[in-house]
Amino acid sequence: MLEELKEKVCQANLDLVKHGLVLFTWGNASAIDRNQRLVVIKPSGVSYSQMKSAEMVVVNLAGEVIEGRYKPSSDTATHLELYKAWPEIGGVVHTHSTYATAWAQTGYDIPIVGTTQADYFYGDIPCTRDMSVDEIDRAYELETGKVIIERFENLNPTEMPGVVVKNHGPFTWGRSIEEAVHNSAVMEEIAKMTYISSQINSKMTMNTHLTEKHYKRKHGKNAYYGQ
Amino acid sequence: MLEELKEKVCQANLDLVKHGLVLFTWGNASAIDRNQRLVVIKPSGVSYSQMKSAEMVVVNLAGEVIEGRYKPSSDTATHLELYKAWPEIGGVVHTHSTYATAWAQTGYDIPIVGTTQADYFYGDIPCTRDMSVDEIDRAYELETGKVIIERFENLNPTEMPGVVVKNHGPFTWGRSIEEAVHNSAVMEEIAKMTYISSQINSKMTMNTHLTEKHYKRKHGKNAYYGQ
Amino acid sequence: MLEELKEKVCQANLDLVKHGLVLFTWGNASAIDRNQRLVVIKPSGVSYSQMKSAEMVVVNLAGEVIEGRYKPSSDTATHLELYKAWPEIGGVVHTHSTYATAWAQTGYDIPIVGTTQADYFYGDIPCTRDMSVDEIDRAYELETGKVIIERFENLNPTEMPGVVVKNHGPFTWGRSIEEAVHNSAVMEEIAKMTYISSQINSKMTMNTHLTEKHYKRKHGKNAYYGQ
Amino acid sequence: MLEELKEKVCQANLDLVKHGLVLFTWGNASAIDRNQRLVVIKPSGVSYSQMKSAEMVVVNLAGEVIEGRYKPSSDTATHLELYKAWPEIGGVVHTHSTYATAWAQTGYDIPIVGTTQADYFYGDIPCTRDMSVDEIDRAYELETGKVIIERFENLNPTEMPGVVVKNHGPFTWGRSIEEAVHNSAVMEEIAKMTYISSQINSKMTMNTHLTEKHYKRKHGKNAYYGQ
Repeated sequence: MLEELKEKVCQANLDLVKHGLVLFTWGNASAIDRNQRLVVIKPSGVSYSQMKSAEMVVVNLAGEVIEGRYKPSSDTATHLELYKAWPEIGGVVHTHSTYATAWAQTGYDIPIVGTTQADYFYGDIPCTRDMSVDEIDRAYELETGKVIIERFENLNPTEMPGVVVKNHGPFTWGRSIEEAVHNSAVMEEIAKMTYISSQINSKMTMNTHLTEKHYKRKHGKNAYYGQ
Repeated sequence: MLEELKEKVCQANLDLVKHGLVLFTWGNASAIDRNQRLVVIKPSGVSYSQMKSAEMVVVNLAGEVIEGRYKPSSDTATHLELYKAWPEIGGVVHTHSTYATAWAQTGYDIPIVGTTQADYFYGDIPCTRDMSVDEIDRAYELETGKVIIERFENLNPTEMPGVVVKNHGPFTWGRSIEEAVHNSAVMEEIAKMTYISSQINSKMTMNTHLTEKHYKRKHGKNAYYGQ
Repeated sequence: MLEELKEKVCQANLDLVKHGLVLFTWGNASAIDRNQRLVVIKPSGVSYSQMKSAEMVVVNLAGEVIEGRYKPSSDTATHLELYKAWPEIGGVVHTHSTYATAWAQTGYDIPIVGTTQADYFYGDIPCTRDMSVDEIDRAYELETGKVIIERFENLNPTEMPGVVVKNHGPFTWGRSIEEAVHNSAVMEEIAKMTYISSQINSKMTMNTHLTEKHYKRKHGKNAYYGQ
Repeated sequence: MLEELKEKVCQANLDLVKHGLVLFTWGNASAIDRNQRLVVIKPSGVSYSQMKSAEMVVVNLAGEVIEGRYKPSSDTATHLELYKAWPEIGGVVHTHSTYATAWAQTGYDIPIVGTTQADYFYGDIPCTRDMSVDEIDRAYELETGKVIIERFENLNPTEMPGVVVKNHGPFTWGRSIEEAVHNSAVMEEIAKMTYISSQINSKMTMNTHLTEKHYKRKHGKNAYYGQ
C-alpha cells in the first residue's frame, strides 16, 4: 500500500544524508496521505546505506502500525502531533544537523538577520521551552510534539516551517516531504551563517521591512521569484 | 544570439556550485556585451543541476527581456545598475556564500588584515548601509544596486571588485565573468580567514604599505606576479 | 592467529579515516580476545593507505608482542590498561580528531547540553587531570591509562564510553571495536556541536531528566530505540 | 636537468592541493639540490590543474633562472633566504591555508597546548614581527626571508619546522620537500584545533614536560614512535 509515498519517504531520508544533515541513523522523514489519514515514516535505527522503500512503515494517526515489518521511528509520535495540529503540512523532517542542533542546545531562537532566512522563514526560528519532568517521563515523544505546537501559538506553520526543540534538535515541515527536506537543509545553512555572524557582531539587527520584502517575493500571491 | 556569451554565463553559474558558493538556487552570474549593450543572466529560481546555456536570458540595460523563455534572475536590476555605473566591468556575480553572507549580516566591512585580501581587494571590503523602508518597498533590486554604487563614492570598482550588501550577501565583479566568479571565491575564503582571526585577536592590524605592496605586485603596470 | 580479529581491527582503523577522524597516522584502534587474553592493535606510524590485516600486531596483556613483524602502536600500553581495568570492553580507539582534541587541549569536560550526547554518553564527557612530571617521564603511555581509570572512579565505562585526555585527545571504547569506532565518530560530532553552542550561550543547561530519558531509551532493559 | 627533483617538486605542489591547503595558485613548494646549489620551484601564478614537472623552474641561490621557460614563484627570494641560512633543510613550502593564515593575520604565535603540536613542533609556532616600510618597499620577498630568520635567532629550524609570517601566511620546511608538505598539513590542522580550543578556554596551558616527551618520542636518538 502507498507504494509511491513510500518511495518518496525513502528518497527523502536518503536526501538528508546527501545534504550532509544526518550522521549514522540520526534523522527521520515522514509524509502523510491526507485522504487515507495514514503516515509513512522511516523505521527506527535502521542504517541509511541499505534503506529500501519497502521497509518504510505505515502508521495511522493514533500511532498504530498498519503495515511494515519494522518498528517506526522512535520520534513517530512527535511527527503525528504535528500532522494532527496542522492540516496544511504534508511532510515532516527531524535531524541532528550540526549547526541547527547547536542552536537547539543553547535554548535560543535563531534570530533573523539576513535575507537568506527571510526567503524561507518569516521571522526568528523559534526554540521551544524546557520540558517538565512530567512531560519527559510520561509520553516523551508525544509531549515533544505538544511543546512545538504550544510554541506556535502565535506563529503560522506555513510561514515558519521549522523549529529547534530545546536541547534536542531541529524539526522542519512543508506542504510536501520534499519541501520539508529542503527546509531542513536551508535551516542548517542559516544556523551556520548566523552563528558566525553572532560571533562577529552580537548586536546585529535587520529591518523587519526587509524580512517582509524577501519573504513575500518568494511566497504568496505577489511572489515574483522563480518561474 | 550571443551564443558564446550564454555558454560563458552558464559555465560561470555552474562554477559557483563547483566552488561551494551556492546552495540550491542561491546565486546568479551575468555578463555584458558592451557593443550590443545586452546582458546575459541566469534565469530565476532554476536548478543548477540541469542548467543549459540555451536557458540563459538576454536583457537590455532597461531590464527588458530580449530573448529567452524564462524570467531572468530576480536580482537582474541590481546587476544592471552596476553595469550602467561602471563601464569597466564585464561580469557580475551574486551568491549567499556562507562566510561572506555572515559578514553581510553583521553590517561590518571585512577589514583588511592579510595579504590574501590585499592580492585582490585594495582595502577593507565595504558593507552597504541599511536601506530605507521606501527603498525596500519601491524598486528593491534596483535600489540595492544604487546603495552599492553610493557606497563606492570614494572607491574604485576595479581596485575593490566586491561588496557585501547589509543583511543580504556578497556581490563581486570583474573585467570578465570569469574574473567575477574568481573574486567571489576569493571573497568567501577571505571572509572565513578574517572571521577566524577576529575571534583570536579583535585588535589586529596591518600596515597599509603591505596592502599596497601586495596589491601592486599583482595589478597595474608594475605588477610582477604571474607569467 | 586471530585472523578474524585482525581483519576487524584493520577495518576499524580504516573506518577512522573514512569517518574523517584521522590525519596521516594519528590514530589507533585495537580489539581484545578475552578468551585468549590477547590484543590485536595497529602497528606504529604505518600509513593507512596501504594497511593490511596481516600487518596488525598481536600483544599479550603485559605488552609483549606475540605475533607480527611490526612494532605495535606507541599507545599500546594505554589500551592495555583499559582492557585490564574494564572486563566489559572489547575494543579501544584513540584519535586526534579535530574537535574532541580541541576540547582535550582546554582541559574541560564536554558538558552535556543535548540529547545527541545523552543518546550515547550518560553525562558530561570527562577530561583527565594534568599528569605529573614523574608520570610523564616514567612509563608515559601506561600512566596515561592510569589517569583515565582514576578519572572513572565514580563513572561507569559502559555508560560513559569515552574520555578526553588533557592536552592530548580522545579515547573511546565499546563492547566491540566497531562500537568503539562508532563512539569515536559520535564524540567528534558532539564535540563540534557543543563547541558551537558554547560560543552562542556560555550558560546553557539541560535537565538531567532529559539525559536519563534519552540514554535509557537507547540502552538497558527498557530501551525502545531501534529494532 | 634535475629531472627527478622537478618531479618531486611538481608532485609536492599537487599534494598541497590534495591536502586542501591551496586555493587557486596560492601556494608554492621548492626543493634544493645541495651538491649543485640549485633550487627547483613552482612557476609563478600557474594553475595547478595542468601543472607538469617540465614546467618547474631551476634557479641558483642568487635567484637567477638557470632553466625553465616560466618565471619562478614570486616568493622565490624568501625560499632562497631560508636555504642559505639553514643548510639542514631540503624543502620549503608556502601556502595561504585557512587556519594558519588566520593565525598569521592575528600576529600571534600559535601556542603549544597539545601533543599533536608537540609531535612535530617543539614549542609555540612563532609569528614574525611587523616589517618596516623600508623592508616592504625595498626587496620585499628577500626581506620576508630575513624576518623569518631573525625570528629564529633562538629557535632551531629542525625542531621548529615552520613559522607564520605576520599578516601573510605560513611557511614550513623539512629535510625533504615531502617533509615540508607534511609539516604544512600538520600546521594547518594544529592551527584549526588550537583556534577552537582558544575560544573555549582562553587560559589553557600545557606542561612543558609533556611537550618534551612527545617531541622526543618521535624525534632524535631516543625516538620510539614508528617502525
